[in-house]
Amino acid sequence: MILTVTLNTALDVTYRVPRLLPHASHRVAGVTERPGGKGLNVARVLAALGHEVTATGFAGGPVGALVRESLERSPGVADALVPCAGATRRTLAVVDAASGDTTQFNEPGPLITAAEWAAFLARYEELVRTARAVALCGSLPPGVPVGAYAVLVRAARAAGVPVLLDTSGEALRRGVAARPEIIKPNAAELAELTGSRDPLPATRDARRRGAHAVVTSLGPDGLLAVTAEGSWRAAPPRVLAGNPTGAGDSAVAGLLSGLAEGLDWPDRLARAVALSAATVLAPAAGEFDPRTYEEVRGSVKVTAGRAG
Amino acid sequence: MILTVTLNTALDVTYRVPRLLPHASHRVAGVTERPGGKGLNVARVLAALGHEVTATGFAGGPVGALVRESLERSPGVADALVPCAGATRRTLAVVDAASGDTTQFNEPGPLITAAEWAAFLARYEELVRTARAVALCGSLPPGVPVGAYAVLVRAARAAGVPVLLDTSGEALRRGVAARPEIIKPNAAELAELTGSRDPLPATRDARRRGAHAVVTSLGPDGLLAVTAEGSWRAAPPRVLAGNPTGAGDSAVAGLLSGLAEGLDWPDRLARAVALSAATVLAPAAGEFDPRTYEEVRGSVKVTAGRAG
Repeated sequence: MILTVTLNTALDVTYRVPRLLPHASHRVAGVTERPGGKGLNVARVLAALGHEVTATGFAGGPVGALVRESLERSPGVADALVPCAGATRRTLAVVDAASGDTTQFNEPGPLITAAEWAAFLARYEELVRTARAVALCGSLPPGVPVGAYAVLVRAARAAGVPVLLDTSGEALRRGVAARPEIIKPNAAELAELTGSRDPLPATRDARRRGAHAVVTSLGPDGLLAVTAEGSWRAAPPRVLAGNPTGAGDSAVAGLLSGLAEGLDWPDRLARAVALSAATVLAPAAGEFDPRTYEEVRGSVKVTAGRAG
Repeated sequence: MILTVTLNTALDVTYRVPRLLPHASHRVAGVTERPGGKGLNVARVLAALGHEVTATGFAGGPVGALVRESLERSPGVADALVPCAGATRRTLAVVDAASGDTTQFNEPGPLITAAEWAAFLARYEELVRTARAVALCGSLPPGVPVGAYAVLVRAARAAGVPVLLDTSGEALRRGVAARPEIIKPNAAELAELTGSRDPLPATRDARRRGAHAVVTSLGPDGLLAVTAEGSWRAAPPRVLAGNPTGAGDSAVAGLLSGLAEGLDWPDRLARAVALSAATVLAPAAGEFDPRTYEEVRGSVKVTAGRAG
């Protein structure tokens, strides 16, 4: 089983408006809701790829109940979420029909108590024992110690289970020092971690901070990987226009499933880029189109570089 | 009992962000939630003024359940909401801490079926028989006929109960033709109804369309009333800076309670302006501060004009 951790689960709400005008009143033309938090997105993609997946993290309040109901309807994802007294958050994406641009609002999430954090840790340590790989994804809700991911990375490593960490800011900085197998920053997260906006040196710098492998997302240009086995760039066959929501989570699912299946790095990267592309091109945000995935997978261009 | 009708009840959510930047990602610094829809706001203010109030309209889904739970905790407001299969909407106000300005997003609301509308009408006709006054407030959810308010105005008039109608657009246009006792448009709603942006002629025009009295909200400048008994302007003692959310609903509660208590027009208007002011000055959006209300009430300036 692959374990995904989403400490700050969410209900991802999308509003479509004709045009976003600050300080005006908008009649929302369309509303869609979807359980989210990066780890749950990763779990769904892993399940669609045929993996057995267990999802843990926190869920509470009416929004938490909705998230759990929807997990029940997700084939292949086992619900191991830990209850919390606070209410699971919503995130809101306001899509401007005129420009296609998205304005994002992320609620902070529930306040997690020390007892809830301890209950989660106990559950995690139990789950990690039977996991083949672990994904630690997204932001930390209030109350969770900022070093949380370092603790979770170490517990997985102690159990001999490889960990992929996908977060940002101080949570990433602390987590990377605990030596996860893979981190997958985007350009902004990498720049915040290393102080450099030049992808190759910054990716190498991030690796020196402790990660065994760093896979940097270059947005529409694909992925840049610096690992112990070598470094690669993997790019989609052409620039793909669409909705990038969830593309990073699909890349995480591709990397993690490739790791669990023992694929070599070029194949893992090709899978990750193809899944991202199939997510960008899917009609619904955060879904991926299996046919596009199969089509693109064979034509991802993976180029070896100098070892990282 | 005073009956308030909120066909499109809502959970009013407020996000505070440091600065609203279109097409950027925002970490929400604060989230507050409050059951809303204009009629529920009016009901709470009426109850605070000591009136017995019954609230009807539709509620459905998880948000509808939250709205009903909160009504249970509102002293003096009896819950006569009619269940619907669709989910009660949220509205979102994004408050920009830098400028204090608010960007508003209103979800459309649940799709009401013909059977649900018929069930509501039966409940309304039963409730209106024991009401001293009725407030019909806010937008119509999808599926409710656009002439809904005209039907509700006529049913109240047939029962001999005075009606205040506070809505906009085509729902207002149709409703006003059914001759409600009072309508309370703001400047934009009045301009949409009459085609004129000049408050006095537009208010007179609105009255000729069927309302017995038209009370136009002039925002921080107070109210302009054109009635069969005369016309008046009522202004707060000074310009009040604060959050105008709910100020219009407080004015409706002031007008309706004054009507139910048999106050004359100048006293009704003074009460409505003072309640609006006490709402603008209250720390929480949509609340009103009773002390400010009592203070301002004595110093509202009511000026008689030419009869409308």
